[in-house]
Amino acid sequence: MFKTIEFKDSKLYLIDQRKLPCETQYFQCNNYKDVEFAIKDMVVRGAPAIGATAAYGAVLAAKEFIELDKENFLKKLDCALEILNNSRPTAVNLMWAIRRMKNLVYKNRESSVAEIYRKLKEEADIIYKEDVATNKAMAKYGNEIVPQNARILTHCNAGALATVAYGTALGVIREAYYGGKEIFVYADETRPRLQGGKLTAWELIQENIPCKLIPDSVAPTLIRDGKIDLILVGADRIALNGDTANKIGTFMLSVAAKVYNIPFYIVAPTTTIDFDIEKGDEIEIEERDIMEVTHINGVRIAPENIEVYNPAFDVTPWENITGIITEKGIVRPPYRENILQLR
Amino acid sequence: MFKTIEFKDSKLYLIDQRKLPCETQYFQCNNYKDVEFAIKDMVVRGAPAIGATAAYGAVLAAKEFIELDKENFLKKLDCALEILNNSRPTAVNLMWAIRRMKNLVYKNRESSVAEIYRKLKEEADIIYKEDVATNKAMAKYGNEIVPQNARILTHCNAGALATVAYGTALGVIREAYYGGKEIFVYADETRPRLQGGKLTAWELIQENIPCKLIPDSVAPTLIRDGKIDLILVGADRIALNGDTANKIGTFMLSVAAKVYNIPFYIVAPTTTIDFDIEKGDEIEIEERDIMEVTHINGVRIAPENIEVYNPAFDVTPWENITGIITEKGIVRPPYRENILQLR
Repeated sequence: MFKTIEFKDSKLYLIDQRKLPCETQYFQCNNYKDVEFAIKDMVVRGAPAIGATAAYGAVLAAKEFIELDKENFLKKLDCALEILNNSRPTAVNLMWAIRRMKNLVYKNRESSVAEIYRKLKEEADIIYKEDVATNKAMAKYGNEIVPQNARILTHCNAGALATVAYGTALGVIREAYYGGKEIFVYADETRPRLQGGKLTAWELIQENIPCKLIPDSVAPTLIRDGKIDLILVGADRIALNGDTANKIGTFMLSVAAKVYNIPFYIVAPTTTIDFDIEKGDEIEIEERDIMEVTHINGVRIAPENIEVYNPAFDVTPWENITGIITEKGIVRPPYRENILQLR
Repeated sequence: MFKTIEFKDSKLYLIDQRKLPCETQYFQCNNYKDVEFAIKDMVVRGAPAIGATAAYGAVLAAKEFIELDKENFLKKLDCALEILNNSRPTAVNLMWAIRRMKNLVYKNRESSVAEIYRKLKEEADIIYKEDVATNKAMAKYGNEIVPQNARILTHCNAGALATVAYGTALGVIREAYYGGKEIFVYADETRPRLQGGKLTAWELIQENIPCKLIPDSVAPTLIRDGKIDLILVGADRIALNGDTANKIGTFMLSVAAKVYNIPFYIVAPTTTIDFDIEKGDEIEIEERDIMEVTHINGVRIAPENIEVYNPAFDVTPWENITGIITEKGIVRPPYRENILQLR
């Protein structure tokens, strides 16, 4: 089995998700600037995976500054953590992981530089292990709502590649499949970056899970025609009222699911919840390079000088969400009340 | 201005829509088999353009068999018309144009071979000219429902490239723009073949019409956020009850339009109406090669051995359609009654 993220010999190795499915290459991060690049350029993506990656980015930063005196070490480290924190704007797990590292530094500010480094490494390893345990817990809860013979629709990649291992939405799918349910998965290709076609399809084939790849706009016709029993997607940020930011295209599925009365579930760890915001319209939506739309693998597919609108995410309103599957159980409406109890 | 279709010196020239927007090349059809290939391989696409192309295909077939005795000429010609008729299954304009040529042959079956050829050429020229006049008439009717400053969403390519000239949905947009309305167009890129990104964006840029290209799944968020005032799309086949087959992705837009109360119009000539079928579920939906999804410009973008579902069209139910803009006026519900009056 591939490893999405691995820290070894003071270096961070990331499976290069820009190269899949044609090549399985690992991207080596020697320092925190490499980690910033890897997050920005989407060598690694998926909210939980970004969180764990950023935590190791903090470890690499501490390693880089370990020869400095404490004052300069703390100053430089703080700056590096800020840079990592700003590498992408929407996934709250990134901010959560960096905040956790920052708090740890603050708590240990009287310790030696070497000791702070050791603690950071320990904390990153905990985040790493927690993510796997969290995914397994979500998978168990999620599996309870997967019917036998379910035809499941998923969007983007919420798999092992989006997390440390196992996956969120794909974690539930793995659990159902390993548990002997005869499921069938439809994977949206997910333009513009095609994470469904490049990553989810690749994971499903590796696991021999029966599946078909579809262009995104095919999904609503399958929903209408009664060919989908359940929709499972991940999340990048969840507001207190349940509004959920996820990959562009998720909103559309939720609208069709609502109109045609199909269960629509978010699968996400509680670290994806932003307890500081009330509603989805407070979530900053990242706009990405227009080349993601005008070119594929370096080949131009749109005319020169064309303007493009390329938001990476959209917000699904809580009314369209049947439930949010977390590692602490399935949260259902009223969301605000039930989400606050998770804290 | 480019020509989508041109018959010159007994040859048919088609702008090669597989090469746009990067190259402007013309594909030369010397005989009806070239025409069959051009339709199948989507050198030419768009229901009205396919109709006119097939008509000239019949002319080329007649030319090819002109040295034969009448009996053999009629037999061979009939067979060629059948082949052209089966080159694609969904667009009814193809069957309509071929039926028109067949009827003409039947009516003139007592004439000489040369005379039949001459009549076919005359008829194809009439179809060609009628299409332009039809588009201009639709554009006039359609322009009446375009508000000043309208932000218009369109899908796939229903432009000059989908017709002989001017276009259906893009014909209305051209008319509004030339008439001085300050409009803005959002063009869905339209996976898998990207006719929006490759063709519609190219046409809009050639005309300097303000526009932005978007991935298909961005459109529903624009509709929800009140950024779209009007949706205009073409059609490949319309049933008596108003159900409309059009490029995959159209249905999704119609659902969002219905939920968020945005006017959704089909723009199509009455030749797109199939008076022989009552409802959309009788329309055969073409499934195309999975390579349209797994590869872009020859480059693999999905894992090997992945299964794919790739329908070329979907059916929008009449309940989601505000009106059908034809060359005879705008048809509104009750569709069956009002469509029958067009006959």
